[in-house]
Amino acid sequence: MKRKGILIVVSGFSGSGKGTLMKRLLSQYPDTYALSISATTRAPRKGEEHGREYFFISKDEFEKMIVKGELIEYARYVENYYGTPRVYVEQKLDEGKDVILEIEIQGALKVKQAFPDTLLLFVTPPNAAELEKRLVGRGTETMDVIRSRLDRACEEAEGMDSYDYLIVNDELEACVSQMHEIIRGEHHRSFRNEVFIKEIKEDLEKLKRR
Amino acid sequence: MKRKGILIVVSGFSGSGKGTLMKRLLSQYPDTYALSISATTRAPRKGEEHGREYFFISKDEFEKMIVKGELIEYARYVENYYGTPRVYVEQKLDEGKDVILEIEIQGALKVKQAFPDTLLLFVTPPNAAELEKRLVGRGTETMDVIRSRLDRACEEAEGMDSYDYLIVNDELEACVSQMHEIIRGEHHRSFRNEVFIKEIKEDLEKLKRR
Repeated sequence: MKRKGILIVVSGFSGSGKGTLMKRLLSQYPDTYALSISATTRAPRKGEEHGREYFFISKDEFEKMIVKGELIEYARYVENYYGTPRVYVEQKLDEGKDVILEIEIQGALKVKQAFPDTLLLFVTPPNAAELEKRLVGRGTETMDVIRSRLDRACEEAEGMDSYDYLIVNDELEACVSQMHEIIRGEHHRSFRNEVFIKEIKEDLEKLKRR
Repeated sequence: MKRKGILIVVSGFSGSGKGTLMKRLLSQYPDTYALSISATTRAPRKGEEHGREYFFISKDEFEKMIVKGELIEYARYVENYYGTPRVYVEQKLDEGKDVILEIEIQGALKVKQAFPDTLLLFVTPPNAAELEKRLVGRGTETMDVIRSRLDRACEEAEGMDSYDYLIVNDELEACVSQMHEIIRGEHHRSFRNEVFIKEIKEDLEKLKRR
């Protein structure tokens, strides 16, 4: 079966360790996965590079991309735009790579709506006690910070059912394998292999007519 | 996450090697999987054992099971009934085992209708040329036999889209791993972990109220 790339959205609780998980997955399977690079209108921070952390573009350029439909999804936070350029994603998918987007729930659902074949993965700690530990931290955070993290986590939890899979991040290496295995399995879904099914059907019909 | 057993239906082209595949999977992971045993009204053949190949029961007993809703699915071929007893399947699922039913497409769709969480797997040779080879055999079959196999294969191919995954049986050991991996991945689906999601939500709400 010809391997076609899968568009994958990864979300998760803050403190779920999804950043580390992504880095590890990509360094372990560089030929399998590509990380989508977002475009943003915010200024680059020290050490950030155009085309590595983000595509840094002007507000004008960003708004032109919106109008032309060149973004898969976008959002505005405070004064800045953040979005996913379509061209880069499609290019990598065509190369047969599975492209990973690390975005939050609202963006995830927009992507799924535009591309129903998108795979939605949600990274979570193994249980609520562990989640609490990661949200509350080491006792050095203010109550305000903790409260705002909790509010955000509640919102994220509300969306969990909309994701296809839960990725339980207990131990990093095990979690990387789990995620890779799930994605590899997804390539075998019938709806992702319509060409293969069509060919089998046609060939059987040909055989019958012989 | 607590592991709940998954009901799995395996179908596939005749000659796809699914019989050998099942045997291998079960012998390799005896604690993970259980094979459902069908009930039938046909007489046992030499070497067959009640409760191993089939549950051999009378027509009267079978019809009582139908009326009482004790069969997940059943069908009648020629003069005999074949069906899947519900009790055995549910018992194994409760033990946390993934229960495998080896049945054809009509039965598969009936099971999926009754139990929407059922996982449908379709075993196929890697391509049509290989399928042809396995259908036509070594040239020792009559044209009638080949024609009837082809007709059956065409019917089966029509149903392929209804299955969740295609299992490509190219090399046996690789195929066993592939199937095991796909099923293991399925355990991480959100809809199979509603209890886990509910607990996380409740615990977060409790934390917020503290």
